[in-house]
Amino acid sequence: MYHHVKKLMYTVRVDEPNPHFGNMLLEQFGGANGELAAAMQYSIQGLNCEDPARKDLLMDIGTEELSHLEVIGTLARLHLQPMKSQAEAAEANPLIAVIGGGGVSLNNSAGNPWTADNLKISGQLEVDLRSNMAAEARAKITYELLINHTDDTGTIEALKFLMTREITHLKAFGAALESMGKDPLEVGDMPVEPEWINLYFNDSTGEGELGSDHSGPWNSGGDWSIVDNPAFDHARER
Amino acid sequence: MYHHVKKLMYTVRVDEPNPHFGNMLLEQFGGANGELAAAMQYSIQGLNCEDPARKDLLMDIGTEELSHLEVIGTLARLHLQPMKSQAEAAEANPLIAVIGGGGVSLNNSAGNPWTADNLKISGQLEVDLRSNMAAEARAKITYELLINHTDDTGTIEALKFLMTREITHLKAFGAALESMGKDPLEVGDMPVEPEWINLYFNDSTGEGELGSDHSGPWNSGGDWSIVDNPAFDHARER
Amino acid sequence: MYHHVKKLMYTVRVDEPNPHFGNMLLEQFGGANGELAAAMQYSIQGLNCEDPARKDLLMDIGTEELSHLEVIGTLARLHLQPMKSQAEAAEANPLIAVIGGGGVSLNNSAGNPWTADNLKISGQLEVDLRSNMAAEARAKITYELLINHTDDTGTIEALKFLMTREITHLKAFGAALESMGKDPLEVGDMPVEPEWINLYFNDSTGEGELGSDHSGPWNSGGDWSIVDNPAFDHARER
Amino acid sequence: MYHHVKKLMYTVRVDEPNPHFGNMLLEQFGGANGELAAAMQYSIQGLNCEDPARKDLLMDIGTEELSHLEVIGTLARLHLQPMKSQAEAAEANPLIAVIGGGGVSLNNSAGNPWTADNLKISGQLEVDLRSNMAAEARAKITYELLINHTDDTGTIEALKFLMTREITHLKAFGAALESMGKDPLEVGDMPVEPEWINLYFNDSTGEGELGSDHSGPWNSGGDWSIVDNPAFDHARER
Amino acid sequence: MYHHVKKLMYTVRVDEPNPHFGNMLLEQFGGANGELAAAMQYSIQGLNCEDPARKDLLMDIGTEELSHLEVIGTLARLHLQPMKSQAEAAEANPLIAVIGGGGVSLNNSAGNPWTADNLKISGQLEVDLRSNMAAEARAKITYELLINHTDDTGTIEALKFLMTREITHLKAFGAALESMGKDPLEVGDMPVEPEWINLYFNDSTGEGELGSDHSGPWNSGGDWSIVDNPAFDHARER
Amino acid sequence: MYHHVKKLMYTVRVDEPNPHFGNMLLEQFGGANGELAAAMQYSIQGLNCEDPARKDLLMDIGTEELSHLEVIGTLARLHLQPMKSQAEAAEANPLIAVIGGGGVSLNNSAGNPWTADNLKISGQLEVDLRSNMAAEARAKITYELLINHTDDTGTIEALKFLMTREITHLKAFGAALESMGKDPLEVGDMPVEPEWINLYFNDSTGEGELGSDHSGPWNSGGDWSIVDNPAFDHARER
Repeated sequence: MYHHVKKLMYTVRVDEPNPHFGNMLLEQFGGANGELAAAMQYSIQGLNCEDPARKDLLMDIGTEELSHLEVIGTLARLHLQPMKSQAEAAEANPLIAVIGGGGVSLNNSAGNPWTADNLKISGQLEVDLRSNMAAEARAKITYELLINHTDDTGTIEALKFLMTREITHLKAFGAALESMGKDPLEVGDMPVEPEWINLYFNDSTGEGELGSDHSGPWNSGGDWSIVDNPAFDHARER
Repeated sequence: MYHHVKKLMYTVRVDEPNPHFGNMLLEQFGGANGELAAAMQYSIQGLNCEDPARKDLLMDIGTEELSHLEVIGTLARLHLQPMKSQAEAAEANPLIAVIGGGGVSLNNSAGNPWTADNLKISGQLEVDLRSNMAAEARAKITYELLINHTDDTGTIEALKFLMTREITHLKAFGAALESMGKDPLEVGDMPVEPEWINLYFNDSTGEGELGSDHSGPWNSGGDWSIVDNPAFDHARER
Repeated sequence: MYHHVKKLMYTVRVDEPNPHFGNMLLEQFGGANGELAAAMQYSIQGLNCEDPARKDLLMDIGTEELSHLEVIGTLARLHLQPMKSQAEAAEANPLIAVIGGGGVSLNNSAGNPWTADNLKISGQLEVDLRSNMAAEARAKITYELLINHTDDTGTIEALKFLMTREITHLKAFGAALESMGKDPLEVGDMPVEPEWINLYFNDSTGEGELGSDHSGPWNSGGDWSIVDNPAFDHARER
Repeated sequence: MYHHVKKLMYTVRVDEPNPHFGNMLLEQFGGANGELAAAMQYSIQGLNCEDPARKDLLMDIGTEELSHLEVIGTLARLHLQPMKSQAEAAEANPLIAVIGGGGVSLNNSAGNPWTADNLKISGQLEVDLRSNMAAEARAKITYELLINHTDDTGTIEALKFLMTREITHLKAFGAALESMGKDPLEVGDMPVEPEWINLYFNDSTGEGELGSDHSGPWNSGGDWSIVDNPAFDHARER
Repeated sequence: MYHHVKKLMYTVRVDEPNPHFGNMLLEQFGGANGELAAAMQYSIQGLNCEDPARKDLLMDIGTEELSHLEVIGTLARLHLQPMKSQAEAAEANPLIAVIGGGGVSLNNSAGNPWTADNLKISGQLEVDLRSNMAAEARAKITYELLINHTDDTGTIEALKFLMTREITHLKAFGAALESMGKDPLEVGDMPVEPEWINLYFNDSTGEGELGSDHSGPWNSGGDWSIVDNPAFDHARER
Repeated sequence: MYHHVKKLMYTVRVDEPNPHFGNMLLEQFGGANGELAAAMQYSIQGLNCEDPARKDLLMDIGTEELSHLEVIGTLARLHLQPMKSQAEAAEANPLIAVIGGGGVSLNNSAGNPWTADNLKISGQLEVDLRSNMAAEARAKITYELLINHTDDTGTIEALKFLMTREITHLKAFGAALESMGKDPLEVGDMPVEPEWINLYFNDSTGEGELGSDHSGPWNSGGDWSIVDNPAFDHARER
């Protein structure tokens, strides 16, 4: 059985609290790409996982994300604190001010409660690792956007730490997927149907600058055959 | 501006309706990894996308997924139809039987309403493509599991068609990501912090079979340094 | 089987983007009375419908609403675009700014995710048509209120187009209901109980201007009998 | 100010409790078309309403629906009671059995919590009345379907009472709308655009039995002009 | 059977409407600790309750809370009214302005729809009474925080009335719990395990000001034994 | 800063897996009164708490509950495992079988996703402690009901451990509240209005066995004055 041991790696410092920015930070506390989502997604995948080595990986990163939840929560709390006394700040976020007494809660920046709908847990290891790589990429870009919205040195430093760790996790999950030795298009056990696999359906079409059809390695070259939308054929026959 | 044109590629046939299986099928109609989720995720990413070639890709696949929504919806409807007359079937899913009059609705197999929380839309193209690759992998495995729960020939044929198309999309999104020429760990523009990027925190630890630490390419070799959980140091000092 | 073919009827033009108004517009993109709700409600009713003529109507209007989703989404995106660079705009809607990268998402103006709870699908044709007439009326008044909050010519023109189409649909659904030849009070097959049908219970009562009882064709004349709240009788006997 | 006074009109009797049917009944207690939804929709519309006569109507019916919530809740509770002792019944609905201790809760038949997303409140009287007429039609057909799933005499009697009252309310709301003297297509104050109002877009088309185009008073005769989907024109030109 | 009779005890007066404050007030109309939550929690507990005396208590207070819903709704409506004409106010809450026509709706201050997830109903009387005491305490502090955000005399008076009643209810529920003659740690019927009941696990530990361990009557004195986190032992052994 | 260290105290053993019971167990994994709810409620209250001693208590118990999440998750996973191969079990819970691949997910026994609406966090210490005491009482009775639905020895033993710890926490939170030295009716700082505090409104009334009025220490004796529902007075005067 597991011992989870986690440590707050980061001593958080906020020089100039900004409740509006504190509200933005809640995205990574109680939001869709936030630290609780990451912690729960990886830990529960790990609980279900039957491959002991990659289970250990999922548990390690899941536990680390839980410690990040504390970092981001502490950071958000420090930024939200003026809400307790500033009327304008309180009006901007009555949910925090009136219901939460000015503290953090597990809501995103729009006040929506965190929901397990944020999690992607499939019980299929190579699928879970792909979901995790995508989740890390989303978390990285979210931290990048947050950093662009603040000038506070202590805050930027903490967010860069958290942002960097997401790429570390992306690297680890990618290595774990690669080490499974699966083909890039191999998911599960059931073979696909050869007659459909290499057809690219040109379903949307248009006119003018945005709408013109384009080709690229995603629909031409290699095995690809482009199929023009059959509805057009039908239309032509009318 | 765009013309979206879509066609139902598949004429659905159900030999022996099974309301319990019809209920399972709702996962791909109104569920988290289902066809509406795919259609909306890609179409809205496409609407926001400023790269015309990959916007066309997002719109093509988004439109195709919308036609799959019709396929799966028709399939589910045919399987659910006995609910109109069979008391036992109706009791098993009163939401469909009583509120929906025995037809399909945008709920998953547990009766939860479809929610836009299912969507991952970041506004950052390489991130969106990763989210889409993961979504396609989840959809593939879901179809595989569904196929394992039915014996109906017409149903299996339709589900294999849909399953195959998910891998086609995985291939296309993968090619689109690769063609952007980004490093596998490159997300957004902001550089990561070198001091943190290659540390693997051994945060969970344990005893016995499941809990032992493991190493693999995700934490050893290459640039990796393993850091044992600092809480242990702290504990040792107590 | 169906071919759904949709076309964006409207080339959207925004002269002066206004992120606050863009946020308001999200109501009709990802909100309760918005275009996705309309598209899904009518298309799924159509999928379930066994009357081929009115099924065609439901599919026609459902498909048109899907094209409106693109119109309103494009309009909202253009209004939200300054969020990418303006701090004040971003603070006002961090969900769009930070998570969505400044693009549209399937949320309403308060940031709530779209949910299938917005849909009214009963499987009973005359009931569905009534739900649709009410939905169109709500959409019309929402567009009217939106138009009252903007001065942008291109925006107003597009919104008036969308608003007008809602009344067109109201007219079509109304004609479809009327052509079924049902009595205005006829819903389903089961007869009502004659002893209860024409009683109007005067359940609320009051004093002063607002609270006084009123009579009108909804409780007097014709077959109506008013029954004073029996709780009073009980009270008098105490 | 208002005095709301309500009375349970109906003494509920259940001869043979059936937990599966009790679960179905929860639809009208905590479900989308249920009695709380009706009570809240009309009462809050009434609270916002500035027309004193129709405000009184909204309050009267809102109050009556609140008393129906008690009737249906009592009925559901009596049917669910065996859950306290029957393992099979408890397994079929653990939410009620384990969390609710066998009593009723404000969930629908699939266990989803009641949500204010069920409500349609627009602040525009003629729109609210249309929403209410549609809501009553949905409630009527739901009761009809419920009655078809039980043989219990006491239960049927109570459900027929409740079903009948929905049609009474439909009649009252219809009379209130008609007495406003508005044209059937008149919603709000803003005029529609004459160039778009009478066009019927033939957006979906198909082949075979279900998919053929149909005409009816909703797209032909009167002022209607049918516009064939312009995407076909585009396709023909390719 | 029950007659619920409720009366608005309070004639609401607003001297200076403030839409931002009106928005805050929605917390007690459609929010987690608000009046609908209280009314529904107590009434449904009452419906399920088999102790006639405490059932009467639950029904009395449930009915009173329903009348408070009217008080707070009227108060919120008066504060929100300027939204109908003021653009800035409307932009601050488009959900109310555009969808609600400027009236109240069953949403909280962040625009989230009211949900039955707010309710705590266990079917076990002593548990329900504890849930109610906690709910009243939360409602009291919410009113206190709301009062701190307004200067309007009429509003303050109404809120103090409502706030006071919450403490009245806390007192009544507390007396009802005490009169059951249960031990403070007695919940349900099943005895606890003596070997585990008096152990206090010192699971979190830290360094510095905030993190140091503390003792108090919750972990020392009486029967308590403190158990230091066993993970440390494990760590020490490594 | 904090070090959270948690350890799974319990090695879980399941003798005879039962997927239906596994589904019930999900209530304490992803349900309203479950272990994640407890862990998050106490930890976030602790994060916001400015009283260092009681902050330590909140963190200790919050961390312990997180370890319980692992215990209950492991237990549920073992009971659900047959779903992977048994068709009947899979049909009974397609959400787990098809989407989750037979593993646990953060949903309750009805398949609803866990939501932060389950949390009660007020930022006011004495209020939070009351919410926690109520939460522990609910968790205790839930475990008791679960134990009544299984015969599996290993399962019963684990559930009794978890059940006992809830009472331990109830005791600790109660001692922490008592040690604050507050009057039982003292919540926050603002005094209540003397004219309203001791009135008991007899708002519901009835006839017959259930509906008769009752008196007890919650409305008679001490300072209480009973006020008969004023609506009756009004009725009598009509």
